[in-house]
Amino acid sequence: MHNLVLALALAAAPANELQPIYDQVTKHHAESVERLRKWVALPTIAAEGLNTEQGVKRMMELAREAGFQKVERIATDGKPGVFATLDAGAAKTVGLYFMYDVKQFDPKEWSSPPLEGKLVSKPGLGKVMVGRGAVNQKGPQSALLAALHAIRAAGKKLPVNLVLVAEGEEEIGSPHFAQIVRKPEVMAALSKTIGVFMPGAEQGSQGEVTVSLGAKGVVELELVASGEKWGRGASTDVHSANRARLDSPAFHLVQALATLVDANGDPAIDAFTAKARPLSAEENAMLDLAAVAQSEADDKSRMGVKVWARDAGWRESLGHLVGRPTVNIEGLVAGYTGPGGKTVLPTRAVAKLDLRLVPDMTRDEAVAALKAHLAKRGFGDLEVNVSGGYDPNATALSSVLIQKSIATYTARGITPLLWPRNAGSWPGYVFTNPPLSLPASHFGLGHGDGAHAPNEYFLIESTNPKLGGYDETVKSYVEYLYQLGQ
Amino acid sequence: MHNLVLALALAAAPANELQPIYDQVTKHHAESVERLRKWVALPTIAAEGLNTEQGVKRMMELAREAGFQKVERIATDGKPGVFATLDAGAAKTVGLYFMYDVKQFDPKEWSSPPLEGKLVSKPGLGKVMVGRGAVNQKGPQSALLAALHAIRAAGKKLPVNLVLVAEGEEEIGSPHFAQIVRKPEVMAALSKTIGVFMPGAEQGSQGEVTVSLGAKGVVELELVASGEKWGRGASTDVHSANRARLDSPAFHLVQALATLVDANGDPAIDAFTAKARPLSAEENAMLDLAAVAQSEADDKSRMGVKVWARDAGWRESLGHLVGRPTVNIEGLVAGYTGPGGKTVLPTRAVAKLDLRLVPDMTRDEAVAALKAHLAKRGFGDLEVNVSGGYDPNATALSSVLIQKSIATYTARGITPLLWPRNAGSWPGYVFTNPPLSLPASHFGLGHGDGAHAPNEYFLIESTNPKLGGYDETVKSYVEYLYQLGQ
Repeated sequence: MHNLVLALALAAAPANELQPIYDQVTKHHAESVERLRKWVALPTIAAEGLNTEQGVKRMMELAREAGFQKVERIATDGKPGVFATLDAGAAKTVGLYFMYDVKQFDPKEWSSPPLEGKLVSKPGLGKVMVGRGAVNQKGPQSALLAALHAIRAAGKKLPVNLVLVAEGEEEIGSPHFAQIVRKPEVMAALSKTIGVFMPGAEQGSQGEVTVSLGAKGVVELELVASGEKWGRGASTDVHSANRARLDSPAFHLVQALATLVDANGDPAIDAFTAKARPLSAEENAMLDLAAVAQSEADDKSRMGVKVWARDAGWRESLGHLVGRPTVNIEGLVAGYTGPGGKTVLPTRAVAKLDLRLVPDMTRDEAVAALKAHLAKRGFGDLEVNVSGGYDPNATALSSVLIQKSIATYTARGITPLLWPRNAGSWPGYVFTNPPLSLPASHFGLGHGDGAHAPNEYFLIESTNPKLGGYDETVKSYVEYLYQLGQ
Repeated sequence: MHNLVLALALAAAPANELQPIYDQVTKHHAESVERLRKWVALPTIAAEGLNTEQGVKRMMELAREAGFQKVERIATDGKPGVFATLDAGAAKTVGLYFMYDVKQFDPKEWSSPPLEGKLVSKPGLGKVMVGRGAVNQKGPQSALLAALHAIRAAGKKLPVNLVLVAEGEEEIGSPHFAQIVRKPEVMAALSKTIGVFMPGAEQGSQGEVTVSLGAKGVVELELVASGEKWGRGASTDVHSANRARLDSPAFHLVQALATLVDANGDPAIDAFTAKARPLSAEENAMLDLAAVAQSEADDKSRMGVKVWARDAGWRESLGHLVGRPTVNIEGLVAGYTGPGGKTVLPTRAVAKLDLRLVPDMTRDEAVAALKAHLAKRGFGDLEVNVSGGYDPNATALSSVLIQKSIATYTARGITPLLWPRNAGSWPGYVFTNPPLSLPASHFGLGHGDGAHAPNEYFLIESTNPKLGGYDETVKSYVEYLYQLGQ
């Protein structure tokens, strides 16, 4: 094991102690998979206001069924959250972060219906469940719940107490998650935990496991140009013949967008990256190892990539992925968007952006920088409608949460790859920022892919000797909880 | 009458000669309006491939019913056209240009259903027919057909022979109209005409009439950026976390678009405007008069405009409208376009553009300039998909077609306003360019608005003393045909 892992001499729970639990995992396999399938069939999509009520109720039922004694709905200014506690009379308490929402989907793009959760054979893997939310995040979360069911079914007492916080707005940038966590009773419960983890399918297709020490922050926003707010152009869509005497809000937006990046497409928003912390020597060392352990060809092939941005080499591209703030266009909408053309001068144009942040950037400073940048360049009329976002988060390698996850994987013969920071985002900052200042991370065996994309899947029955299926994933949670309880 | 109108001493047909025809116009009012209503109920939309067959058949029926003896369907590489002739044994032959297609529409944006052609009271006007195509161009065209019906019903011989050419792709830029006109038999028939006119509702809301001496040309095109063609970024939509290591086709498009205009939004495409002919002294004199005759306040209020582009004054804005080439964004589409956001890095981004051309620019040179401009700046990978377009056209004030339209209006006590060139486009170049080199223009009393917009309307029963309703429009065509026959 490489020198970055400060492996603690942790005694794994003896195999004979956990065997009765493993037996229950196997025995209840079909029931656990069916629980996941039913959850996939109920998509809660915050952006579309879909199934909020049904989603939060199901989340509460799932918690109750898994043994949480207290399960509360937490109202927010947006979609409700769930706060649940399981008091096992254990010495230690662990926090869990769940999301009950999923990303939007277009069934036309799927080869298997996105809500049916069908088991489909996938070459080199085995049988996977295909469905929206299968890997992001219902599969891993249901596996953790199955672990709780199995421990109880084996007649065992849970080795840790649990505090669960769940939200239904993760996929729109968790705009109200802080409201959930900052309720006094939730705060009080979380402050007793040794840290908070989110169940995740952390295994790559070769069985490799990654332990990430944080995540970028993100701001999701719409930039809207309109004749109305600009005071130029028309206040309604007019015939494009008028373009000769009327300004174009769509070009106004395009001109504003063009100032947000440099020729390479890198952020050029004034002061945006001022507090971006360069990768440390330790983080760079992690990436040196990762560049050897991970396959560039696989990554390129998976996404259909010929060259990395800035013509970077593989190792360099990983540094960019982890270390660079970004400005991304998620979507553009203006005027006529159907087939062919339509000679219209649109009065409104919208760019949907996401900005990714690295420590020590903050969401609020990023938004302020963007607004100031636009105002300075004559684009102060553009609406900056922030729909969600959060600060970056980081958790120390030396924290118990991370060290015990490493120990759990290692006990299974898997040397985890350390990763400085996820390029994707999750609202771990609510836990890692003051006043809680807790470790926060992801944990879980299991493999899946296609988050936010068509044909999202989660491996259920593995034919790949390097990968476990659903039951091995469930067992990994049993083992981690026992490690944490020690 | 101002000095620009070289009024010929035309003898208007004596009122008593036309009275029996006027009587028929009145008698068949309901039938004529119903013919229009039914036509509005059948929208042919080339961009959507909607009702092509039904549309061309209806066009042919309408021509036959109005007395055209020979009515032929003309196949093209796109939607079919119609070629029809009416031999009245007259000395002179006049060409007619019709379109049987209409612009796309979104019923949600309409206060009256766009296909029902309901008669709705409009303050200050009277009863208007609301429907897609009502003014652009079925209302005026149906009024011309009603004139032919009325002349026949009165037992009169048509004072001119007619050659009709109609297309079903005007709203997508007439990509195949030249194929229709250049069929040898069509060409032969048109070459015998004294010119070609398109029926149009040429009256403003105060009853004023404009005679335009040409039209801008146009190119409609899609500019498409994609990871596939670019060879950068991903070849599929991927999670936006990858933005840090992947180029963005959407930003590539934005950066390309930003080079097409200057800070004012005016064309900045290399060589694009090189052949743009400045307005002549005669054209400027027409605009001087127009600036006095037309109401800036009305124009501004109609479109919800506070300031003209380039902060122009009223007279200056008319010069811009008529004299300037443009680059317009009709629409933008990329990635996620639904409510809220979606953390995706789109692999494809599309801008729908229209370029407006003034003499002596040409469609082909404009497209070539755009492609060269993009290639020179590193955007040669962008697809330039031209969906339609045509050259500008111009017709001399001294032409018989124009002079007789002026005489017809004048005989009604309306002094027409001369207008150098429509800012909107129509494929008159097919007639005005060699080898035909014919005069081509619009003619017609009648008032309507909302072409390409929701709640398009055409005035049917006027309560405004300055405006005639449908029957007066029909009569204006009777009068024009008699003028042309002399």
